[in-house]
Amino acid sequence: MLVTEPVLRAFTENIFLAMGCSAQHAQLSADVLLKSDLRGIDSHGVARLTGYVRLWEKKRINTNPDIKIVYETPTTATVDGDAGLGLVVAPFAMRVAIEKAEKYGSGWVSVRNSNHFGIAGYHALMAVEKDMIGFAMTNASPLVSPTYSSERLLGTNPMCYAFPAGKYPPLIVDMATSAAANGKLEIAQRAGKHVPEGWIQDKEGNPTTDAHALKSGGALLPLGSDPEHGSHKGFGLSATVDILSAVLSGANYGPWVPPFVAFLEPPTDPVGMGIGHFVGAMRVDGFRPVAEFKSHLDNWIERFKSSKTIDPNQKVIIPGEPETEAEANRKANGIPLVDAVVNDLNELAMRFNISKLSL
Amino acid sequence: MLVTEPVLRAFTENIFLAMGCSAQHAQLSADVLLKSDLRGIDSHGVARLTGYVRLWEKKRINTNPDIKIVYETPTTATVDGDAGLGLVVAPFAMRVAIEKAEKYGSGWVSVRNSNHFGIAGYHALMAVEKDMIGFAMTNASPLVSPTYSSERLLGTNPMCYAFPAGKYPPLIVDMATSAAANGKLEIAQRAGKHVPEGWIQDKEGNPTTDAHALKSGGALLPLGSDPEHGSHKGFGLSATVDILSAVLSGANYGPWVPPFVAFLEPPTDPVGMGIGHFVGAMRVDGFRPVAEFKSHLDNWIERFKSSKTIDPNQKVIIPGEPETEAEANRKANGIPLVDAVVNDLNELAMRFNISKLSL
Repeated sequence: MLVTEPVLRAFTENIFLAMGCSAQHAQLSADVLLKSDLRGIDSHGVARLTGYVRLWEKKRINTNPDIKIVYETPTTATVDGDAGLGLVVAPFAMRVAIEKAEKYGSGWVSVRNSNHFGIAGYHALMAVEKDMIGFAMTNASPLVSPTYSSERLLGTNPMCYAFPAGKYPPLIVDMATSAAANGKLEIAQRAGKHVPEGWIQDKEGNPTTDAHALKSGGALLPLGSDPEHGSHKGFGLSATVDILSAVLSGANYGPWVPPFVAFLEPPTDPVGMGIGHFVGAMRVDGFRPVAEFKSHLDNWIERFKSSKTIDPNQKVIIPGEPETEAEANRKANGIPLVDAVVNDLNELAMRFNISKLSL
Repeated sequence: MLVTEPVLRAFTENIFLAMGCSAQHAQLSADVLLKSDLRGIDSHGVARLTGYVRLWEKKRINTNPDIKIVYETPTTATVDGDAGLGLVVAPFAMRVAIEKAEKYGSGWVSVRNSNHFGIAGYHALMAVEKDMIGFAMTNASPLVSPTYSSERLLGTNPMCYAFPAGKYPPLIVDMATSAAANGKLEIAQRAGKHVPEGWIQDKEGNPTTDAHALKSGGALLPLGSDPEHGSHKGFGLSATVDILSAVLSGANYGPWVPPFVAFLEPPTDPVGMGIGHFVGAMRVDGFRPVAEFKSHLDNWIERFKSSKTIDPNQKVIIPGEPETEAEANRKANGIPLVDAVVNDLNELAMRFNISKLSL
C-alpha cells in the first residue's frame, strides 16, 4: 500500500492525540516518525506506532510530560524527560543544545528518563539546519553481547554525526553500533532466510546463521562481528553511547535499560530512570567561516563520489545520500507500507475510534 | 631487549633535543611516545622516532613551531600547529579545550597544520585527569578504501573516548576505524603469515589474505570489512574523523593527507595545511556530580566484567583495561624492544652523536 505523506502524517498525529499528547507534541512525534518513513528507514517510522501505544497502555510512557533541565553549565545540561516519548524529549534536548551553541559555540545535553527517540538523524539534522554540526545517540533495549560474552548487555546503541554541506545534502552518518540492525534480522525472519555469519550468535555464544536465534536467547554481535575483525571496537563504540547517554545523565544502562517491547517488564532493580540519550551541537563558524567549510565538504563529497570503484556499476555511497534520495522520492510518490504495518495501524484506528488509513 | 622507562625516556628526549626541540617540547614529545610504549601500543611509541626524524630532515616537521589559536568562540577553537610535531600540537589543543571546559562546561578544538600525534589516548587522558570526559581523533595518511572503492582515500583515522572511573582505571576506547590496524599487518608481514580475510583488499579491490597487498597498491578495509557486515559504518566513522579533524580546521583531508613516510612526497595540490586533529573535553560535573558518575561507571564496569562468557577462560575486556595492566607491568619491569627498533634507535644515536641505548 502506497500512502501519501500528508495522509500518513494526519493519521499518525491522530493516534498521538488519542494517546493524550498535546497538539504540539502529537505534531512533533508524527514529524519524527514520518521523517524516518520518508527517508526509507521503515523500521523506525510508523511501524513502531503500535509499540509506543502498548508502552503507553502499560503506563511506561507519559504523554503529558514535564520535560526539564535538572543540571547545567553554560554549554552542558542534563534533561529529565519525565518518562515522555523520546520523540518529544530528544528534540527538547536538542533545542537546549542549539541555544547553548548559539551563545557559546557548542552545547551538549545528556538525557535521562526518556523512551525510544526514533531515528537519531532527525535530532542531529535539527542542528544542521542552523549551520551547526549535529550529534545524537541513544541507548536501547539490551540485544547485543560484548565481545567474548554470551549475555545481552547492550542495545544496538546508534550514533549519529551530521554535517551541513553546500550544494550537496547534509552528510549524515547514522548507524547502529551492532554489525546488523535488528530490522535487517526481522526482514530475514519474515522471508524465512538465513542471515550471514557475523550478525548473531546463539544462546551459548556460538556463531549461527539462524535468523530466529535472537528469539531463543541469542544476541546480536557488535560492529566488527568477531575479535579478529575488531568486534571489540563495535563494543567500545556501543559502550561509549551507553555511558554518554545514561551513566552521564542518570538513566538506566547496559542490561538495566527497560525493553521497548511492552510484553517484557523492565528490570526490578533499576540503576537510573528510563532510557538515556546524548545530543550535541557545534557551530561550524566556531571553527572557520561556514562558506569555507561547506565548500571543502562539497569537495570532499565530490572526490569520494568520483572515486575509482571495484564494480563500475556500484559507486561509492556518501553517508546519508540514499536517505536523501528516498526522501525526495517518497515525498513525491508516497510511502510504501507492508500489509502487516497497515493492519497494525488500522487496529490502532479501531482501538482509538479514528478513521482508518486510506489511500 | 628490555629497557627501563627512565633510560628510554632520557634517550628519546635527547633525540628530540638534537632535532632542535625546546627542552619543554622534547620532554612532552618523549612523554607521549613513552606513554604508548608503556601501555603496550608498540607501533606508536619509540618505534616511530625514526619516522619523525626523517620527516624533520625533509623539512616537513618544524621543531620550533609557533602554535596558535587562529579562530575561536568561548567553547570552540581552531589551532594552527605551524607544521610542528603532533606530539606537542595536540597537547596544546587539548589544554585549550580543557581551559574552555573549566570555564563553560565543554571545549572543542579542531587542529590544522600538524603532524602525527602519537596515540589518541594520551590526549584524551589529559581531560580525564581533570574529571572530564576526553575526546581525541586525527586523520592520517590514506591507506583505507571506502566501501565499494579500490582507491585509498582515508587513514586508519582513530577515534578515542575516555571516561574517569572511581575505583577502576579510566575506561578508554581508543580505536582505528579500520578493521585492522596497520601495525597488525606489519606483524604478519614480518612473520611471513597470511592475514584473515576482511582486513585488506588488493589493488583491484578483490579480497585477499596476502599481508603484503598494501605494498602492491592494495588497501586496508574499514571496520565491518564488507558491506554485508557493515563496512559502510566503518567508512562513516572514518569520514566523521576526517571531517571533524580537517574539513573543519582547514587541514588536508582524504587522499590529500600528507603521508607519514618521508619517502613519499605530499600531494602537490593540497586542499589545506598539514594533517588535522580534533580534541574535546566535557566536565563530568556539567551533567551530574562527579562522585555519582564514577560510582555508576564502576557499577557498569563490574557488571560487564562479571558477565557470563562464551569461554570460561576469556573474560569480557573493559576498553582500556589491557593498556592499564601493561603500563603497571612495564613501569615495573621495563619496556621490551624488538631488535629492529633497537637498531633504528642506535642509528639515530650515531647520527646525532648521542649515547646509544643501554640496558
